[in-house]
Amino acid sequence: MSEAAQTLEGWYALHDFRAIDWQAWREADDDVRAHALDELSGFLREWAQTEENKQGSTAVYSIVGQKADFVFMHLRETLEELNDMETAFNKTLFAGFTKPAYSYVSVVELSNYMGGSGDPMENPEVVARLKPILPKASHICFYPMNKRREGSDNWYMLGMEERRAMMRSHGMIGRKYAGKVKQIITGSVGFDNWEWGVTLFADDPLQFKKLVYEMRFDEVSARYGDFGDFYVGNLLDESKFAAMLKL
Amino acid sequence: MSEAAQTLEGWYALHDFRAIDWQAWREADDDVRAHALDELSGFLREWAQTEENKQGSTAVYSIVGQKADFVFMHLRETLEELNDMETAFNKTLFAGFTKPAYSYVSVVELSNYMGGSGDPMENPEVVARLKPILPKASHICFYPMNKRREGSDNWYMLGMEERRAMMRSHGMIGRKYAGKVKQIITGSVGFDNWEWGVTLFADDPLQFKKLVYEMRFDEVSARYGDFGDFYVGNLLDESKFAAMLKL
Amino acid sequence: MSEAAQTLEGWYALHDFRAIDWQAWREADDDVRAHALDELSGFLREWAQTEENKQGSTAVYSIVGQKADFVFMHLRETLEELNDMETAFNKTLFAGFTKPAYSYVSVVELSNYMGGSGDPMENPEVVARLKPILPKASHICFYPMNKRREGSDNWYMLGMEERRAMMRSHGMIGRKYAGKVKQIITGSVGFDNWEWGVTLFADDPLQFKKLVYEMRFDEVSARYGDFGDFYVGNLLDESKFAAMLKL
Amino acid sequence: MSEAAQTLEGWYALHDFRAIDWQAWREADDDVRAHALDELSGFLREWAQTEENKQGSTAVYSIVGQKADFVFMHLRETLEELNDMETAFNKTLFAGFTKPAYSYVSVVELSNYMGGSGDPMENPEVVARLKPILPKASHICFYPMNKRREGSDNWYMLGMEERRAMMRSHGMIGRKYAGKVKQIITGSVGFDNWEWGVTLFADDPLQFKKLVYEMRFDEVSARYGDFGDFYVGNLLDESKFAAMLKL
Amino acid sequence: MSEAAQTLEGWYALHDFRAIDWQAWREADDDVRAHALDELSGFLREWAQTEENKQGSTAVYSIVGQKADFVFMHLRETLEELNDMETAFNKTLFAGFTKPAYSYVSVVELSNYMGGSGDPMENPEVVARLKPILPKASHICFYPMNKRREGSDNWYMLGMEERRAMMRSHGMIGRKYAGKVKQIITGSVGFDNWEWGVTLFADDPLQFKKLVYEMRFDEVSARYGDFGDFYVGNLLDESKFAAMLKL
Repeated sequence: MSEAAQTLEGWYALHDFRAIDWQAWREADDDVRAHALDELSGFLREWAQTEENKQGSTAVYSIVGQKADFVFMHLRETLEELNDMETAFNKTLFAGFTKPAYSYVSVVELSNYMGGSGDPMENPEVVARLKPILPKASHICFYPMNKRREGSDNWYMLGMEERRAMMRSHGMIGRKYAGKVKQIITGSVGFDNWEWGVTLFADDPLQFKKLVYEMRFDEVSARYGDFGDFYVGNLLDESKFAAMLKL
Repeated sequence: MSEAAQTLEGWYALHDFRAIDWQAWREADDDVRAHALDELSGFLREWAQTEENKQGSTAVYSIVGQKADFVFMHLRETLEELNDMETAFNKTLFAGFTKPAYSYVSVVELSNYMGGSGDPMENPEVVARLKPILPKASHICFYPMNKRREGSDNWYMLGMEERRAMMRSHGMIGRKYAGKVKQIITGSVGFDNWEWGVTLFADDPLQFKKLVYEMRFDEVSARYGDFGDFYVGNLLDESKFAAMLKL
Repeated sequence: MSEAAQTLEGWYALHDFRAIDWQAWREADDDVRAHALDELSGFLREWAQTEENKQGSTAVYSIVGQKADFVFMHLRETLEELNDMETAFNKTLFAGFTKPAYSYVSVVELSNYMGGSGDPMENPEVVARLKPILPKASHICFYPMNKRREGSDNWYMLGMEERRAMMRSHGMIGRKYAGKVKQIITGSVGFDNWEWGVTLFADDPLQFKKLVYEMRFDEVSARYGDFGDFYVGNLLDESKFAAMLKL
Repeated sequence: MSEAAQTLEGWYALHDFRAIDWQAWREADDDVRAHALDELSGFLREWAQTEENKQGSTAVYSIVGQKADFVFMHLRETLEELNDMETAFNKTLFAGFTKPAYSYVSVVELSNYMGGSGDPMENPEVVARLKPILPKASHICFYPMNKRREGSDNWYMLGMEERRAMMRSHGMIGRKYAGKVKQIITGSVGFDNWEWGVTLFADDPLQFKKLVYEMRFDEVSARYGDFGDFYVGNLLDESKFAAMLKL
Repeated sequence: MSEAAQTLEGWYALHDFRAIDWQAWREADDDVRAHALDELSGFLREWAQTEENKQGSTAVYSIVGQKADFVFMHLRETLEELNDMETAFNKTLFAGFTKPAYSYVSVVELSNYMGGSGDPMENPEVVARLKPILPKASHICFYPMNKRREGSDNWYMLGMEERRAMMRSHGMIGRKYAGKVKQIITGSVGFDNWEWGVTLFADDPLQFKKLVYEMRFDEVSARYGDFGDFYVGNLLDESKFAAMLKL
């Protein structure tokens, strides 16, 4: 039996991808649409307030292509809060003009493959990374992933040292993109269908491609990475969201 | 030919995951909604009564994310009872505001990999584990799984002793979480698409992640475990369910 | 090139799994529901008559879980008859309250891996197995399967003798369940997506689990068996079907 | 790099599988149904005329099981003609009572693994095979397939001679079924999701099973064949189609 | 760790495949259809104007078979523009007669496996390939693909030189089709579910088949290529599109 990596967990995460029912939206009465937009604005402001209070964080992006029209990425202290937010949204008139497209449940995670000494929870930098305020970068990229367990490419049968060395080299690539790409790793073992979710933020979306492509040649990804669907999108704020919905 | 492990079976299980049709719910008349909630309450009380009578057990949880809105996990003596419960539910007005999301048919199972001597059915502790009253923990986690049969990673081609030794080590991890995570294993060979269902209960959902992640480094999971979709949720009782549905 | 096993074929089989549209059923007028039930009863009696005339056989079971609500398993002399039965059903008012859930097209098959000498079609026992009257056992289990062709686990590259020896050992397990589980093997190469359908009948559904689980340790299943979805259900007769549909 | 087999191509093929919306059909007015049937008859006659003019060929079969209710298999000179036929059908009232179920785009193909000398397009027999009039056999079987490229079972890494020898042995099996099964191979590399479509015609559907099963033991299929969904059906002509649709 | 190939990126690409809701279209009023067609024409002209201004390019093709009815392939400077185009389309009445069928997000890419010396962005030929005006060929073929990472067939574990040599041989095949098939490679690592999209244009669709089939015997495809769904279609212009939609 191989030794499991120690992990630290912070805020729970819900990525809530939704499609707009454009036909229903087009056919709705003006006042219905106005009311729905008010509901949406109310949520956006409430979530911004929560973020200001450091009790969570929410990122809102449109999604390019047919997989979804937008995503709410919520970070909160508990699964109950995330569930309550879903339910509150589902009860609105606005939600009736949307359809669920994909969701992901996870928790912000730091692994100690690269960990130092001392109690990490005493380290304000670590705590800030576990309970991060999501950046307002121009673009988002999300994908879930597994470490592979197939024949001779079985990550979980490797020894701790071998995994640590590979993760270190992997982390070096990420560090090259510092300032260009902000990366949030969330763990989902026991919560959702893949082992991790990766959420990237950047002002230049080409940096997503360059980072993920470069990592693919790294043994951790090349031999041991299995990837789910990729989503890419553009930042939305209240006025951009209203413009997107304006007929 | 390898020797099959002996198993003991108890109550049959039906995990019934359902999504709420929020739009229909929102658009329904108040009295229709009130009637539907009455039906739901009636079921919740009936199931609680059955549990009190030790004729079965039912757990009710909301589900986080878009996979479902809630799950009924029913344990009963026979498949006929489970089928009757499904049908009775489907006939209600309340069911008309929900849509099937996923289900799983299985039976509570104990394997004798770790078995002692004597007739296990004479052992009240064993019987209690085969016909368990489901805990009212704050959180649930469910996932189905197979033992892998691929190339050199073929569980069913291993000898009994080898499997027993691995299962013992696997069980040791589970035991470390005693008091934190309650685990119900249900067998579904011949009943549903995977070989087992795993249902975990915990007050702290992080313990699901830690347990499943730690086990993943154990050879039984690392080389021989294939996993289906994961569902995670929060405890519902009658008042929480009503609050979830209150507009 | 390996020698193909010789097979004998009997009646064609159609497994027709359907879900009930409970909402439409609930919302229908009483007389519409009454008319639909009359249609259903008419079919059930007609099929019973065909069975009495030894011109085919039909099993009717409810299905536990969300995969389907019931299954008609029809055996008939020709594909045309099966197609006509489907079409006749689809034209009814009752069919309008159901939705297709899954179907399987195959033909009752005996392989000669265990065959004796002489013309098998002269043997009344063989003929009875090729054109069987389906048992009215309390429970049904259905699953499709393939023999695997992957890397070093390629059934179709084995020699006839090796396959015969393995099938003999496999058959021994089945024989241990004689009197407990009745097994109908149908071949579907060229007819449907898997190579075989397996339909099991038993009064105690635990025997499905025990049989399939024990077989899984047998090399034929362990190394060479790939399985599709499993369906399990409870016997329906005219009055049970009416009770299931009674609001 | 291995040498690609040379292929000859003839008519383009569109297999257009459709399901009937029985509920809408049942609920339609008599005159609407009559008009829809007229449209269908018009197409059937037009397609028969095209066939008589040797400008294409069309086979019409019902499909057994829930995958579809019927299939139009069209052969035409160009992709534009096939597209126009689809579009013309989609515009009809009758099409509104059907739903797309599956389709396949390919082109009639002969490979030269078994080719002789001389310009094959000068050979009237070859041309007749590339632009075939589809038989009016009682039954059809369709499935798409790939040549496998997995680990040591990689068809495309084999040498020409090895592939040719295997294809010759494969062809021998097909030849044993001459007079019983008529086989049309269509290539779909670059056109649809699999590399080939196989369409079989026979008066006795058991011959589909026997042919495909026997081939499965041949190395070409055993090690190198990957198969998609199988469809089987019964011949429809104008009166049979009308009978199928008659309420 | 293997060295990643350097890539150059140009315009972002959105392939937007849509199906027509023929029933709604047939049932719409004449003036509604006329208005919808006007909207469509307006878009086609706007996109043509953008192309004339060298600010992007758009290809419009019908799709053969049931996967979709037509595709818009848009190239633009930014993901925001592509997203705005989607949204603008979704708001139209015409969009209400269509349903999303498939989409793909990527960016025009050149790899330097075959690269020369000097700053490629100074090279007008390179820039023209990165920001191409899409050809108006009679036919289009689209498919997404990955480089395989399985066991001993792991592209990303190969050395740069080995990959370069294989890509060179691969490119030679492409060059044989110069003048017959125009190929646009778009990279989608970090943007969509596959690593690349391949879009081919040709006046003779058989050339798609011949090119892709010949490449399949090349080691790059034979051992390292995994392919998604294939779409094939016919050129649409304003009048052809109108004819397709004319009842």
